[in-house]
Amino acid sequence: MKQTSLSKRMIEFSPFLVGTMRLGKWGEDFSTNQWIAFIERALELGLKDFDHADIYGDYTTEADFGKVLKEKPHLRHEMQITTKCGIKMPADNRPEYKIKSYDSGEKHIIQSVENSLRNLQTDYIDVLLLHRPDFLMNPNEIAETFEKLKDDGKVKFFGVSNFSPSQFEMIDKMFPLVTHQIEASIRYLYPFEDGTLDQLVLKNIIPTVWSPLGGGKYLLKGNSKEEQDLNQILKKLIDKYELNTAQLMLLFLKRHPSGIIPVLGTSKTERLEEALKVESKTMEKEDWYALYSAAKGEELP
Amino acid sequence: MKQTSLSKRMIEFSPFLVGTMRLGKWGEDFSTNQWIAFIERALELGLKDFDHADIYGDYTTEADFGKVLKEKPHLRHEMQITTKCGIKMPADNRPEYKIKSYDSGEKHIIQSVENSLRNLQTDYIDVLLLHRPDFLMNPNEIAETFEKLKDDGKVKFFGVSNFSPSQFEMIDKMFPLVTHQIEASIRYLYPFEDGTLDQLVLKNIIPTVWSPLGGGKYLLKGNSKEEQDLNQILKKLIDKYELNTAQLMLLFLKRHPSGIIPVLGTSKTERLEEALKVESKTMEKEDWYALYSAAKGEELP
Amino acid sequence: MKQTSLSKRMIEFSPFLVGTMRLGKWGEDFSTNQWIAFIERALELGLKDFDHADIYGDYTTEADFGKVLKEKPHLRHEMQITTKCGIKMPADNRPEYKIKSYDSGEKHIIQSVENSLRNLQTDYIDVLLLHRPDFLMNPNEIAETFEKLKDDGKVKFFGVSNFSPSQFEMIDKMFPLVTHQIEASIRYLYPFEDGTLDQLVLKNIIPTVWSPLGGGKYLLKGNSKEEQDLNQILKKLIDKYELNTAQLMLLFLKRHPSGIIPVLGTSKTERLEEALKVESKTMEKEDWYALYSAAKGEELP
Repeated sequence: MKQTSLSKRMIEFSPFLVGTMRLGKWGEDFSTNQWIAFIERALELGLKDFDHADIYGDYTTEADFGKVLKEKPHLRHEMQITTKCGIKMPADNRPEYKIKSYDSGEKHIIQSVENSLRNLQTDYIDVLLLHRPDFLMNPNEIAETFEKLKDDGKVKFFGVSNFSPSQFEMIDKMFPLVTHQIEASIRYLYPFEDGTLDQLVLKNIIPTVWSPLGGGKYLLKGNSKEEQDLNQILKKLIDKYELNTAQLMLLFLKRHPSGIIPVLGTSKTERLEEALKVESKTMEKEDWYALYSAAKGEELP
Repeated sequence: MKQTSLSKRMIEFSPFLVGTMRLGKWGEDFSTNQWIAFIERALELGLKDFDHADIYGDYTTEADFGKVLKEKPHLRHEMQITTKCGIKMPADNRPEYKIKSYDSGEKHIIQSVENSLRNLQTDYIDVLLLHRPDFLMNPNEIAETFEKLKDDGKVKFFGVSNFSPSQFEMIDKMFPLVTHQIEASIRYLYPFEDGTLDQLVLKNIIPTVWSPLGGGKYLLKGNSKEEQDLNQILKKLIDKYELNTAQLMLLFLKRHPSGIIPVLGTSKTERLEEALKVESKTMEKEDWYALYSAAKGEELP
Repeated sequence: MKQTSLSKRMIEFSPFLVGTMRLGKWGEDFSTNQWIAFIERALELGLKDFDHADIYGDYTTEADFGKVLKEKPHLRHEMQITTKCGIKMPADNRPEYKIKSYDSGEKHIIQSVENSLRNLQTDYIDVLLLHRPDFLMNPNEIAETFEKLKDDGKVKFFGVSNFSPSQFEMIDKMFPLVTHQIEASIRYLYPFEDGTLDQLVLKNIIPTVWSPLGGGKYLLKGNSKEEQDLNQILKKLIDKYELNTAQLMLLFLKRHPSGIIPVLGTSKTERLEEALKVESKTMEKEDWYALYSAAKGEELP
């Protein structure tokens, strides 16, 4: 159950995924040289997984990343690329989308993958995720599309993101998925309680987790009793584990037996180094529950 | 996944079920000649499925329908009859029921079927549904009762109505069901989200849907921003698809890959004709999501 | 589906479990002679199942009970003992626990069982339950720990308590459980509706039920319409079945086809005798629904 071990489904992630949502147009607008430096440092640190989505940067961030691979093609084989499709989002370069909608039809998936391959300047994607559950998805059609992409060597592994357990089951039954990318953090505890993580443990599928730091809301400034209690426990554990708040939030997720792989959404390589320090530590269960109870604002039953 | 194709479970429904709840005592009180005209027209239109329940019209509507079959016995073999049992409802002709309760015991099911056969003046029912989930249901007893009714030639297929996914599974595991009749519409979106339709897709079981027009609430007169937004999108799509609001609501349901068969609750054969016009059209996914988002009153995540 | 029959999972409970939570430090502080009298009377009545948890009486009640077994060792083979572990609760004799937390790790389970065996003065436990769902539980580790305890003859059967259906499935898939101890009563109807009891019916696993009388809240003193309605129906059924309110609440639970075994939390053997009178009666379904509807405060749909 070690998260870095080879799962039954045959993919091995590094301890964290390096997220690209806040790089490029939606965040830190790196030059290609800055991208290269960032990526090379991540790889040096052993972080070989990069997490994309077609829509990031209004459909531009994959292409920014692709420029690095064009300039340094040998890097491709040192890394694994996750990307996502299935959301149609209005954007300057997608004038045909009038509103935000979801599409998991064969045509859209194939077209999205072709776009991603072209933008990323690569001939294969390691992991393709359906970004959001399309209420109109046809599992047979999805399975056939995944099969085709796999046979063509364009995608190695498949997963989904933000699905309910029954939606996950519907797809996984037709085509074996290797991961479920979900939101989870001390500030978003639902997956611990609503069956999402139970399903992944039972199926031995590794969760990747977005917004593991709760979107920055971990620096609590509120004055409510709950927030004061949580801050007090955080302070105590900061001293005990010799970690900062962000590291503690990662350690909290890493304690779960499913082997959660958090997605780190940062443009600073120091933050990646900081995160890796968590790998040598394990949170005691009592401390995990102290954080859990404080975040819930109530004692355990 | 075409809704009119032969499912694995071997029943083929027409594109819509003709509902009888609003015919007879609970609605349009047809004379037998009016019933005959209505039924013959529905059959001419290719609508061979009629949806009953023992309780409709305070346990009188099946008998109204039965008078037609007595007068025109050849019609029986041109149609399929769904009926339901399991609700005990106080009524003049059921003085023994003091309150509304549910019963899925062998004795009650058998007795209900015998009543329905006598009232409908037929010797078999095509599809028998348990009308509501009885919290005291014993799946073994139900399966044995269904087996007996099938062996005796009294009922051909079985289903349930208004069950949760776990209740459905409990029965379906013991005896294979051919349909789940649920409420769904633009005004009642839960089954798209709560696993109900996921389960049916996964099991390749065709949903039939009651109140597909949201109980007439589709003619929105409210002034809230949400209702204005929904009305605006409805108007746009009315022009685009050359359909009226009711037809659009049916087209919305028909877009789901489960192959939803709506139950039409009307006493006017023009409405049946109108509904059938939907069959030649397909709603674009983006339009489906425009309706969904407007009905939810929020953009997709 | 008779609750007292031998289940597929090979344990046979008596019609009620005798609960010990309100005996000892957390309730009626019996002398050892009082304990002996109470236990011997329960056994005479055919109630051979005693329900413990390590934490009852702040980790002292098992030892109170053990004194009886030391003095009357032959009683051990006339009874079955259920006990629970997995909650770490601050207490005078557990200074190492700073807050309430859960632990289902091998070390904690083994240590808890050793403590329970020593305190109860017995060399085996009949049924060991995980008291609450540990969000950090590792089903593989739990299954291996259960296997070891079974092989060593220290525990005969295993179950859980207060788990969600997906948590239950996660453990049961790895190691077959014989019971799920849940809260249920006229005052706590969720398990009838949320899939908890459906799962147990489907798996043919017998539920044991804590707080079957709703924590004494059955003596309603409120003046709301709902409480007046419920009281009125209770009064009617008290006359009809010649039972008191507590007995009716047990009869209500006993009507469920899963074969619920309520845990009786009383220090008075008269209450045990009263409860047993329920065994010769069966609640009519319509009366069950009258209670259910009144307790919900609404008519059935």
